[in-house]
Amino acid sequence: MIIVMKPGASVKGVSQVLKRVKELGLKPNLIKGKERTVIGVIGWVEVEPDYFEVLPEVEKVVRIMSPFKLASREFKNEDTVIRINGTEVGGRKITLMAGPCAVESKEQIKEIAGVLKEMGVKILRGGAYKPRTSPYSFQGLKEKGLEYLDEVKRETGLAIVTEVMSPEDVEKVSQVADILQIGARNMQNYPLLQAVGKTDKPVLLKRGLMATIEELLMSAEYILSNGNTRVMLCERGIRTFEKYTRNTFDVSAIPLIKKLSHLPVIADPSHGTGVRDLVAAVGKAAVAAGADGLIVEVHKDPQSALSDGLQTLDFKMFSKFLEELRALCSACGREI
Amino acid sequence: MIIVMKPGASVKGVSQVLKRVKELGLKPNLIKGKERTVIGVIGWVEVEPDYFEVLPEVEKVVRIMSPFKLASREFKNEDTVIRINGTEVGGRKITLMAGPCAVESKEQIKEIAGVLKEMGVKILRGGAYKPRTSPYSFQGLKEKGLEYLDEVKRETGLAIVTEVMSPEDVEKVSQVADILQIGARNMQNYPLLQAVGKTDKPVLLKRGLMATIEELLMSAEYILSNGNTRVMLCERGIRTFEKYTRNTFDVSAIPLIKKLSHLPVIADPSHGTGVRDLVAAVGKAAVAAGADGLIVEVHKDPQSALSDGLQTLDFKMFSKFLEELRALCSACGREI
Amino acid sequence: MIIVMKPGASVKGVSQVLKRVKELGLKPNLIKGKERTVIGVIGWVEVEPDYFEVLPEVEKVVRIMSPFKLASREFKNEDTVIRINGTEVGGRKITLMAGPCAVESKEQIKEIAGVLKEMGVKILRGGAYKPRTSPYSFQGLKEKGLEYLDEVKRETGLAIVTEVMSPEDVEKVSQVADILQIGARNMQNYPLLQAVGKTDKPVLLKRGLMATIEELLMSAEYILSNGNTRVMLCERGIRTFEKYTRNTFDVSAIPLIKKLSHLPVIADPSHGTGVRDLVAAVGKAAVAAGADGLIVEVHKDPQSALSDGLQTLDFKMFSKFLEELRALCSACGREI
Amino acid sequence: MIIVMKPGASVKGVSQVLKRVKELGLKPNLIKGKERTVIGVIGWVEVEPDYFEVLPEVEKVVRIMSPFKLASREFKNEDTVIRINGTEVGGRKITLMAGPCAVESKEQIKEIAGVLKEMGVKILRGGAYKPRTSPYSFQGLKEKGLEYLDEVKRETGLAIVTEVMSPEDVEKVSQVADILQIGARNMQNYPLLQAVGKTDKPVLLKRGLMATIEELLMSAEYILSNGNTRVMLCERGIRTFEKYTRNTFDVSAIPLIKKLSHLPVIADPSHGTGVRDLVAAVGKAAVAAGADGLIVEVHKDPQSALSDGLQTLDFKMFSKFLEELRALCSACGREI
Repeated sequence: MIIVMKPGASVKGVSQVLKRVKELGLKPNLIKGKERTVIGVIGWVEVEPDYFEVLPEVEKVVRIMSPFKLASREFKNEDTVIRINGTEVGGRKITLMAGPCAVESKEQIKEIAGVLKEMGVKILRGGAYKPRTSPYSFQGLKEKGLEYLDEVKRETGLAIVTEVMSPEDVEKVSQVADILQIGARNMQNYPLLQAVGKTDKPVLLKRGLMATIEELLMSAEYILSNGNTRVMLCERGIRTFEKYTRNTFDVSAIPLIKKLSHLPVIADPSHGTGVRDLVAAVGKAAVAAGADGLIVEVHKDPQSALSDGLQTLDFKMFSKFLEELRALCSACGREI
Repeated sequence: MIIVMKPGASVKGVSQVLKRVKELGLKPNLIKGKERTVIGVIGWVEVEPDYFEVLPEVEKVVRIMSPFKLASREFKNEDTVIRINGTEVGGRKITLMAGPCAVESKEQIKEIAGVLKEMGVKILRGGAYKPRTSPYSFQGLKEKGLEYLDEVKRETGLAIVTEVMSPEDVEKVSQVADILQIGARNMQNYPLLQAVGKTDKPVLLKRGLMATIEELLMSAEYILSNGNTRVMLCERGIRTFEKYTRNTFDVSAIPLIKKLSHLPVIADPSHGTGVRDLVAAVGKAAVAAGADGLIVEVHKDPQSALSDGLQTLDFKMFSKFLEELRALCSACGREI
Repeated sequence: MIIVMKPGASVKGVSQVLKRVKELGLKPNLIKGKERTVIGVIGWVEVEPDYFEVLPEVEKVVRIMSPFKLASREFKNEDTVIRINGTEVGGRKITLMAGPCAVESKEQIKEIAGVLKEMGVKILRGGAYKPRTSPYSFQGLKEKGLEYLDEVKRETGLAIVTEVMSPEDVEKVSQVADILQIGARNMQNYPLLQAVGKTDKPVLLKRGLMATIEELLMSAEYILSNGNTRVMLCERGIRTFEKYTRNTFDVSAIPLIKKLSHLPVIADPSHGTGVRDLVAAVGKAAVAAGADGLIVEVHKDPQSALSDGLQTLDFKMFSKFLEELRALCSACGREI
Repeated sequence: MIIVMKPGASVKGVSQVLKRVKELGLKPNLIKGKERTVIGVIGWVEVEPDYFEVLPEVEKVVRIMSPFKLASREFKNEDTVIRINGTEVGGRKITLMAGPCAVESKEQIKEIAGVLKEMGVKILRGGAYKPRTSPYSFQGLKEKGLEYLDEVKRETGLAIVTEVMSPEDVEKVSQVADILQIGARNMQNYPLLQAVGKTDKPVLLKRGLMATIEELLMSAEYILSNGNTRVMLCERGIRTFEKYTRNTFDVSAIPLIKKLSHLPVIADPSHGTGVRDLVAAVGKAAVAAGADGLIVEVHKDPQSALSDGLQTLDFKMFSKFLEELRALCSACGREI
């Protein structure tokens, strides 16, 4: 950190800063110019800039290093590759996760799983616990949903990614899930992040709809610092003023995260747009921008889906999308 | 809801809509114009517009009534007044909640509580569990913090408002707290909302920094529909592009919520601005706009606070603010 | 500016920075720590941080002083008070500007002006040139509108505030207007800012709906640096994700601008909310937060207004609002 | 439009609506249900919804058709293809516009033009008039800059795209420019839109950083309705809360505009990100999403550029980007 003192800062004011730096076990680097004093603190600093900014003679504090550590490229330069069920996330291959928004019945999830498996999908998505804005909306089949996912998993060999919403449910969901999904609304649910951080399951951490990239990486840091290193970050659109789309997919987040962090990046063009007709274009854009995988909502009959029907592809649309994706991948040095 | 069919919609397309309406136990109101068919559904509808919008011959669906019910003025016209520890929130009096961001030690909270009580404050704020962006930041004293709050409560008679972050902690926190605070990051943590909805403790529900007013009221609906009717809504600033302030305090949310809902509105000018020098001006603005109370961060020594020091008032600033507020209240037909 | 070099920056890299500093006629302040070099530039710097940040061995550049100068409190400490037609903007009195969104006919503007004058309003608003999102919407009466405003001005003695949209129209509008209004959409129309900066007319500069406070002050700087020192800044709401209101009124902008700048601040609760029922509450909030004046849309018959009817008060609503405002002003140490 | 009356609306209330519909020369379609009356207006309606919403017994007004007309796919189904200097914008080929942010000297622009021409670029960008946030920043060479562009044009045969900032300058700039650029800050500068709408020059209309897609298309409508049908729309990033990037590139805008409109879409990954390292990834994403062309900032020596250096590619980076783009285009059924 660079701590800039106010012009004419007193010896006492500077001492206050030096004292705090030393209390953190760090070495202050006093650099005294003619008109202004600047204190440099080298190395990684755990406190926030306001730890120094509250002092009365401090004018401004500037962070030099990022506030995340375990998630950073500085900490680990090579890409993290996560092995799940025989596939690798974060390597040369584009990982495909697909399935319905919610598990609605045993028949529904079985049928969809069967078709997707034939299309080459390795990871099935499907929510058993559904966070819904309204308490009156379908909240998921819960334990029943997990049971159906487990059955499908054993029958098809597909890996399962499904959301966990509460620390109490982590153990139960982990018995079925191959990947624990943390939803956008829970990106800063710290007890939940700590709980999944203590498991050995890969985690798909979705960006909150008003979260900065730095905050997303700080939330990953909660999981990593609890011992779980298998974290995938998911760009799924942020909230802006635009009204045609449900969210605004932040495509630049993909190369930016890849630059700042070693963790794999998955794109969710379904939530990222909220509009079925835009899913394929945005999904291809995500891959062209460097995404390591996609998570897409697919349903046998989107118009009967109990949630998210407007952004869900049917089998035919998904199949066409996969075909376009295949052509694109080879042009990008990737494969499916 | 008003369901607008596409031009030239077929009999089959219209039937699909009618079928869904009837399945909800509602009466469709078919209104057939020369060139377009519109289906009106009177009464409160639990499903989202997309339940109809996914149908292939539907062009657009318009909600006529708000998606929240128990929180609405239509449901309950008179203002909800909540009695806590001898004071009333939501009546003529402006409720003052004040205290440090976090409980830091027994001495700290006792001293602050003592001074605030003398100044006329009836409700003490202080976090035992602290949601922090960084896993490396001070996370609160937890149980120890609750213990200190309990001691202060017994000694001073002040009511306590403190945050609960996880369903598992609701019982424990309820033993000390007079008001359970749901923080902004947890506004859509539905298991938590359900858990506090099952207690008999008043709840202070903070608006998420990306949440619309409608979403805030839907989150209140989660608590209300679980049986707890004593909910206070808190405007604490939303996230925008502005950089001088930490958040943008949405002052119009106050009269808007009072218009849409019967629940009391508390304003948090500390988080709402993030800047100490702006707290008093924005606090007064909130009262002028109709807020029923304020929650303000006050510390004996803000520059030593373990969190939020930049937005925390010291005793002198708070005392001056109270004085200005008193003059303002009488001009607004309110009192402190 | 504080220019932080990368760790291990070479002598050549540092020289590049020093050279650029000197070319600006400034004195670099080289502060060499053990592990990192920092270059401080004291005094006001015209260039943007990226002037240095593009250099290959520079890590980060931090501005110490604000990029605006003539608009800043550092440049001029005492409040700017602008005299218009016998009233003062920026002093103890709250300035009231009121009138219809647009001049619609001679009769309309005359009648409204007459009523407002009786209510004590000194400055009449009314658009002759109207910026409209749609080319098919009413675009204002233009010259005819100016003519009517001129007639009303001569008959009533009211001062006129009206918008100018193009550099070519500045002279023409100045012949009638006592205050030239720059609309939100034109806040960064630099040729227009330069043109009004060359007149001797007071300017009401509206904040763009996605402009930061710093950008607003930079736009004021365009006017000031062209010689016109009589600039009023207008907070009129910014664009956010909220849908109930047309804009989100940023009440904290008022005390913030008053802190950063000596220029008067006018609040526009009509555009700031877009909702008639919220205008009074937000108008009072603005005054409680320290606004020097208000600009309010008032029409004899809002439901017949050719634009902005939904946010326009009728005479009765406006009269009630004035009454409430009077009580508030004295509690705030202001008067109308 | 669908105009929904309040429950129990009176005959008089309904008549007011019918009267307004008829005054617009339209045919109201009265659809009277048991409990609620709805009035449908078929066909394109020039007024805004609030024209009806201000009426006292109206509850809600819903637009069925988009407010833009000439820009819409309904009006013109086939893609607009614009011929410029032997190339076509909006066809199978991806159009490349490249060059420095600003014309800085005759030598600078000539050298860059020469290199870009060799690389296959057909359209040279370069600003002679520069809109800058600060009045103290370099404002462009103005007439001198146009002169240099003209010379380069004659020597190289490259087409020129350059910004025009004021209606007064349209004629002058048109003498040199092959494409008139309307910058993001001027997207709603209506006198300027009208002025370029009256020329026969192709226009590159940049999306304002706070503009919805609908507003962008309404601004295009200003140009089209003035007679100029050769409009290209440019996505260049919108303003959000994210701080690592200068803007957030809205990639979904590309397929969305292509769906709503027949006009070509150009992407600007330089302004869209503001970060050199992200330009290539976002540029490729834009093409994968369906963009018809790219406009990219390229400079011989970005660190000496007088503006936008941080987002400008050097020749080597641009050349590498072109190579990657070529592979991508063929996978997308496009070519360069």
